[in-house]
Amino acid sequence: MTVMTSPTDTLPAPIPLSRLAVRRIGIDTWRENVAFMHRNCPLYRAEGFQVLSKVEVRANGRAVLATINVVDDEQIVATCELGLSEDAFAELGVEDGHTVTVTHAEPPPSIPALHRKMNGERLDQADFAAIVRDIAAHRYSKIELTAFVVACSQGELDREEVFFLTDAMVATGRRLDWHERPVVDKHCIGGLPGNRTSMLIVPIVAAHGMLCPKTSSRAITSPAGTADTMEVLTDVELPFAKLEDIVRTHRGCLAWGGTADLSPADDVLISVERPLSIDSPGQMIASILSKKIAAGSTHLVLDIPIGPTAKVRTMSEAQRLKRLFEFVATRLHLNLDVMITDGRQPIGNGVGPVLEARDVMRVLENDPRAPNDLRQKSLQLAGRVIEFDPDVRGGDGYAIARDILESGRALAKMNALIDAQGRRPFDHNAPPLGRLSVDIPALDDGVVTGIDNLLIAKIARLAGAPKVRGAGVDLFRKLGDPVRMGETLYRIYADFPAELEFARQAAVQASAYAIGPSAPAAFSLNER
Amino acid sequence: MTVMTSPTDTLPAPIPLSRLAVRRIGIDTWRENVAFMHRNCPLYRAEGFQVLSKVEVRANGRAVLATINVVDDEQIVATCELGLSEDAFAELGVEDGHTVTVTHAEPPPSIPALHRKMNGERLDQADFAAIVRDIAAHRYSKIELTAFVVACSQGELDREEVFFLTDAMVATGRRLDWHERPVVDKHCIGGLPGNRTSMLIVPIVAAHGMLCPKTSSRAITSPAGTADTMEVLTDVELPFAKLEDIVRTHRGCLAWGGTADLSPADDVLISVERPLSIDSPGQMIASILSKKIAAGSTHLVLDIPIGPTAKVRTMSEAQRLKRLFEFVATRLHLNLDVMITDGRQPIGNGVGPVLEARDVMRVLENDPRAPNDLRQKSLQLAGRVIEFDPDVRGGDGYAIARDILESGRALAKMNALIDAQGRRPFDHNAPPLGRLSVDIPALDDGVVTGIDNLLIAKIARLAGAPKVRGAGVDLFRKLGDPVRMGETLYRIYADFPAELEFARQAAVQASAYAIGPSAPAAFSLNER
Repeated sequence: MTVMTSPTDTLPAPIPLSRLAVRRIGIDTWRENVAFMHRNCPLYRAEGFQVLSKVEVRANGRAVLATINVVDDEQIVATCELGLSEDAFAELGVEDGHTVTVTHAEPPPSIPALHRKMNGERLDQADFAAIVRDIAAHRYSKIELTAFVVACSQGELDREEVFFLTDAMVATGRRLDWHERPVVDKHCIGGLPGNRTSMLIVPIVAAHGMLCPKTSSRAITSPAGTADTMEVLTDVELPFAKLEDIVRTHRGCLAWGGTADLSPADDVLISVERPLSIDSPGQMIASILSKKIAAGSTHLVLDIPIGPTAKVRTMSEAQRLKRLFEFVATRLHLNLDVMITDGRQPIGNGVGPVLEARDVMRVLENDPRAPNDLRQKSLQLAGRVIEFDPDVRGGDGYAIARDILESGRALAKMNALIDAQGRRPFDHNAPPLGRLSVDIPALDDGVVTGIDNLLIAKIARLAGAPKVRGAGVDLFRKLGDPVRMGETLYRIYADFPAELEFARQAAVQASAYAIGPSAPAAFSLNER
Repeated sequence: MTVMTSPTDTLPAPIPLSRLAVRRIGIDTWRENVAFMHRNCPLYRAEGFQVLSKVEVRANGRAVLATINVVDDEQIVATCELGLSEDAFAELGVEDGHTVTVTHAEPPPSIPALHRKMNGERLDQADFAAIVRDIAAHRYSKIELTAFVVACSQGELDREEVFFLTDAMVATGRRLDWHERPVVDKHCIGGLPGNRTSMLIVPIVAAHGMLCPKTSSRAITSPAGTADTMEVLTDVELPFAKLEDIVRTHRGCLAWGGTADLSPADDVLISVERPLSIDSPGQMIASILSKKIAAGSTHLVLDIPIGPTAKVRTMSEAQRLKRLFEFVATRLHLNLDVMITDGRQPIGNGVGPVLEARDVMRVLENDPRAPNDLRQKSLQLAGRVIEFDPDVRGGDGYAIARDILESGRALAKMNALIDAQGRRPFDHNAPPLGRLSVDIPALDDGVVTGIDNLLIAKIARLAGAPKVRGAGVDLFRKLGDPVRMGETLYRIYADFPAELEFARQAAVQASAYAIGPSAPAAFSLNER
């Protein structure tokens, strides 16, 4: 056998220019930039691109990276076109049909650091900065993102690494400066259904005159986030300029954080953490603190609930998490006050956006039907925030908060915020609850000795929350309440028969309630 | 504020049936099943589906799971349609327009086990069986797959876990039974450019009369796999019945393994391992041994090359890997003979499909230009395979292999296999090398003291290999060869000027050659 070195028979002609016409492809690939190339695109064939390999697409001096999906249908992309998924198209910022240059993407510069983390090594500050920069710039594929998240979660970051990660996340996005101190905020690590204290604390604290520019997330795995619940009453997706204006006028806001470009790497990371239900301490701290610092907060009250079905199950675990939060906050010059709270059951009665909005408004209106646990917890947390005010004596915060609530000033502030953000129109001022409902009865006489947060959340989600705003669970009994067989423990609301039935079946299988002969002991911190 | 419990104003009507018309979407999502739903699809809105959440699609008693991508373009999918990516559509096996039922997918049953592995726990046999079953059934999203691969890689599986994983991978696919013993095979863990010993061992061993049904992979991260190289000469994508027929007639084959449905979970796992360049010991062993056992092999010779730029760098690492392979092989009743070999440089001269095919054919033709290292290594490995023959005395294998090669019987067998699989037509029997080339010269006088496998592989890939069959690197000097400044170290072949230039620039930046005053020491095993 001999080998010829210069045949010209079957090879395609070389492509002088790597140019294609860009086309917007209306597919939402959820924060992963995808480039669609036709299998017979001469460039695809010539360049040796492969499915899932990455390309760099350039036009007008801007560049985006995207993962290739190969298309066999000319209706989706023609052979002379390059399709871009919604986000990638928007990021490139040119018009349909514009000529773009397509080349093999250099691997993101931080990939060697990613591999070291996957090997279980400790990374330094420069490594985390490089990784987070690449993530925020959408240079990581979903596979690489997942690898980073899992590698950080499994090996557990040490506290210096958590600081590096948080600091890097702050550095990638916008950082607000309100030109005053203190700028206060409050956050809960999550995991408790109900628990809409922010919607009470912000009006109270803002009514006290403190600056509290609260941005919240939507539900990730829960039946409602603060943004979902607030959205029952008012607009939460505000352009940044409007949000800033409301904060300056009213000393606070209750908006969705997604429009403010704070810690954008966090939003990308959440896109893989959510489907995996990953929530490791390091990632939780980086996510929470980077958002707060980027939002310009100087003082933060953090709520860590503990309970058998809360995120944190034991006091020692809570203490460990508290110390890690404190270490990172101090390194970032954030004044942090951690409160460990009772997480043995949902807070308030309603679980689901409309039901939770109802509870919040009842507390603000000093309605006798207002759930007392939500009221008390919110006053305690608001009190701690108010004590960041240098003019308030230690220990006076709670009484000040209670006075603001009882006097109606908190309600007035809430109504001002709702109006400023864009009040929803309702008949008779009432957001609609799900039109279907079913009651779940007690099967025994006794006292409620336990309520499973996870099961209540699951039932509310099966019923349609948070997507169906009026769906959820309304608790008629809480820990320590006496109950007789056949009495209603909770009512499930839904809009669709199938969802009501899913939720009902789950509730029949396991009601989430434990009923015993005598009341459980009062919650005790026994700190240290 | 009051809440109404039965409003009927703005809610969409409930959907009595969760049925849509299926549509094939010509997008290759690389082994991830994707379902495309229009954002305004009533079912999407009613069911509370989310981007990246999974649905179960049923028709005619079959079901596939797919991840949702939301579409905003009616041309891609209409609101009453459900689009399926190529693989998912084929898996469901119905015609375009057929009615399908779409429901929320239950999470794959093995997800709790995945979470335990992500938490660093050890899994048992039932866990691995459940995970691998879900992976083979395409129930894992790309994110979940990545999480599994990274969690297994970072925490390192113990040897029992590697056995469980391997055994589970064998169990998910087809398992061949050739109704005779021994059924022999040979495998290299990879990482050395060139190194096409299989294409010599199979003809030699088959000519000796042993049954050797060799299936190979395509290049994953290397410039050429055995399947890519064999494809220069003949068809390698054979229907299973034809492959079986060739093996029975000729006692061997050199085919691509992808059509035989052996260890299908492995193919899915590779789809994320490849982009991450993950190749942990446990996953390597499970991948290699599951394929061999599924192919019906009873005896295997395994090649572990060691060298400073090979996959395995030290003898102790090689010994550790060897013991792990032996443990798992024994548990699976596979007779395994491990050879640790010299991996300090590429084997043969050519790197890239056409160049490697040239080297192989020169050895078979006893051409004086044949690379001696490729010849010697292949004879040694073939000798070890031949010693699996109960009628061969220990130590006689090498001489038998050499006799088969020198007598031309190996060449005759190779030609028989090439003809049986489907010989490629070439002018003058010569597959075309890349039409462009550039020589890389030595910058010093001296002796070659090192050749970097990784850099040579990278240069060959930049030149276009394996996609461009004739592209690659032809080595003019090997370890210990004297060289004078300006003499050619190697020649790069390519088809496209841009690729030639990429490869040339990389070679100029780092030639991959170390040149010193005196020859390196001979390779020594120093076992134990």
